Amino acid sequence: MSTSAPTTLTPRAGHRAHNFNAGPAALPLPVLERIREELLDYRGTGMSVMELSHRSPEFEAINNAAEQNLRKLLLIPEDYAVIFVQGGGSMQFGMVPMNLALPGKPVDVVHTGAWTAKAISELKKGTLYNIAATTEPAKFTRVPRADELKLSPDASYTYICTNNTIEGTQYHALPATSAPLVADMSSDICSRPLDVSKFGLIFAGAQKNLGPSGVTVVIVRKDLAERADKNLPTILQYRTHIKEKSLYHTPPTFAVYILGLVTEWIAAEGGLAGIQKRNEAKAKLLYDAIETSNGFYHCPVEKDSRSLMNIVFRVGGSAAAPGDEALEKEFAKQAAAAGLVGTPGHRSVGGMRASLYNAVSASDVEALTAFMREFHRARA
Amino acid sequence: MSTSAPTTLTPRAGHRAHNFNAGPAALPLPVLERIREELLDYRGTGMSVMELSHRSPEFEAINNAAEQNLRKLLLIPEDYAVIFVQGGGSMQFGMVPMNLALPGKPVDVVHTGAWTAKAISELKKGTLYNIAATTEPAKFTRVPRADELKLSPDASYTYICTNNTIEGTQYHALPATSAPLVADMSSDICSRPLDVSKFGLIFAGAQKNLGPSGVTVVIVRKDLAERADKNLPTILQYRTHIKEKSLYHTPPTFAVYILGLVTEWIAAEGGLAGIQKRNEAKAKLLYDAIETSNGFYHCPVEKDSRSLMNIVFRVGGSAAAPGDEALEKEFAKQAAAAGLVGTPGHRSVGGMRASLYNAVSASDVEALTAFMREFHRARA
Repeated sequence: MSTSAPTTLTPRAGHRAHNFNAGPAALPLPVLERIREELLDYRGTGMSVMELSHRSPEFEAINNAAEQNLRKLLLIPEDYAVIFVQGGGSMQFGMVPMNLALPGKPVDVVHTGAWTAKAISELKKGTLYNIAATTEPAKFTRVPRADELKLSPDASYTYICTNNTIEGTQYHALPATSAPLVADMSSDICSRPLDVSKFGLIFAGAQKNLGPSGVTVVIVRKDLAERADKNLPTILQYRTHIKEKSLYHTPPTFAVYILGLVTEWIAAEGGLAGIQKRNEAKAKLLYDAIETSNGFYHCPVEKDSRSLMNIVFRVGGSAAAPGDEALEKEFAKQAAAAGLVGTPGHRSVGGMRASLYNAVSASDVEALTAFMREFHRARA
Repeated sequence: MSTSAPTTLTPRAGHRAHNFNAGPAALPLPVLERIREELLDYRGTGMSVMELSHRSPEFEAINNAAEQNLRKLLLIPEDYAVIFVQGGGSMQFGMVPMNLALPGKPVDVVHTGAWTAKAISELKKGTLYNIAATTEPAKFTRVPRADELKLSPDASYTYICTNNTIEGTQYHALPATSAPLVADMSSDICSRPLDVSKFGLIFAGAQKNLGPSGVTVVIVRKDLAERADKNLPTILQYRTHIKEKSLYHTPPTFAVYILGLVTEWIAAEGGLAGIQKRNEAKAKLLYDAIETSNGFYHCPVEKDSRSLMNIVFRVGGSAAAPGDEALEKEFAKQAAAAGLVGTPGHRSVGGMRASLYNAVSASDVEALTAFMREFHRARA
């Protein structure tokens, strides 16, 4: 297994793992190096970014750059606000209906797995909703087809999760809806080009493709933010953060700074078109390794719903019952010993999972597929 | 002014400012150096802390250490939970009444300035409350005396802000209440020893004395967390975070890690007794410089309410009307040029302010007082 061990890294970078964590996840090495370089003295201020006042011109510039980088990458129209908030997707499961649900008008939800289930649990606490489609009968091994959607004529909004980290599925075509489309895009934002104008609201925790945990991006059509009752807690209203340009209260300054560096790195890698190409090539490497294993590896996800971000697969077992749990444990153990981190699947579904977010390189994936071939060969 | 410029720092540390920011604020240099050292490879994992899964044993150890450090420093009793959440004090202004207000039983608020005003604005949205005392007629230049409090016999809880960053006041004796005492301790937590058992709930954004912005500490008596309606959004219930040991959702992992390092540093500095001694000596240096200036500098705060954390003062003017705005602008400008950052007072009150949180050293304060003497001498 020594070929997949990280022996070629420079001493400066130290030992670096092949990181397939589902999030928090790998960050680009040049970004980490830049953070390290500036850690005690941000560009001549004599302070770390963490020590800057959020009201200082230096931090305002950082905050603006992070917003502008996202605007440029995603070509975000002027009638959309881009705000940085705290609390991740779990906070958005509460904030979205609080702000966007209209009285008597249901929220249409397309149910595709564990993350939409969490959003639904919050809706159950008093928001009218309708399951417009669910692939639960198919064990969430695909996202619904357009013709399966039963949309309400008067929906407040339609809710989807564009990429399902646990089930390994992703939308490759968006559902057409008349109501505003609201998307949990935590795990595939900025992994490919996007037409933001098709959405009413997009939210994403940064910790997969955009930076560290602790900052959440919300892209919202400004008129929709005006739906909210002004009696809601101030911090839970999108309009508050829009009005104050994400500086209503002390933001997570260091996380916003890193988001700015990561989005700068994405731009330098060719923007979203370049990143998409990279991500497609990485995913192909791994899906091909699975498909050419004569069934030793098995991906349960239907082909046209397969995620480029989170690739789930089983190891061993039979064609009728793929997955041998003992062998999967052994796989994870040997992979970790070979410097391949984060290969076990989510505890709720088992099996294996490799997350190939933007910062994971093709050579990381090659290390994984080399390991997989060797693991298989040793048992053939 | 060259004597107060930071000319003695080692090249390794680079230029380091004397940082008097009100928050985010100075961090201990050894902590920043440790972060830098571990940034690309956390203790042999081959990953940055930011890249670790929050479900990994490494991060669980970081999370536990941060909690245990706080428990040891503050001698937190077993019947109190310590949780890390997101959103800062502004989120707590909403969460505290949501979780702790009982139907028909008012919240008693002791009003001491801008931060309690923000908490009151959120109470106004539907929580029964009573202003138990206010020092607004005295322009918030002191906190109320015990005999001024008009407490409700059946209050849900009594709410105070222990240190008022903007007004420069701090409680040096706690109000005695029969209802649980809830404290916004964002700006003086871990700056001195504390009897946690006197409180029902304490919250504090980390960005003054405990770390970077983006993580909020809540210390709550476990039985009080059970008051909350289970129909509240899951993430807004304290019990959720207690049950999941702050891992209900992806926490701000890097901020929690730094909080762990800062609390470790506090322990190494002699714990809260040692830190208190340091903080008292620092504050004395600055208050003495003000008091011995023959009125050139003037602190409006009554002596027994003066904050050890945020020292506000006016420059110039007359005994009857202290503070010359043009001179204060000049003071801030020259101070910045001399490497003394963050001396202007809050935009809502004007004048000057120096925040002397734990990580600000006596030599930082000496640089400031030397500058103040020279600024005065040049105008005598």
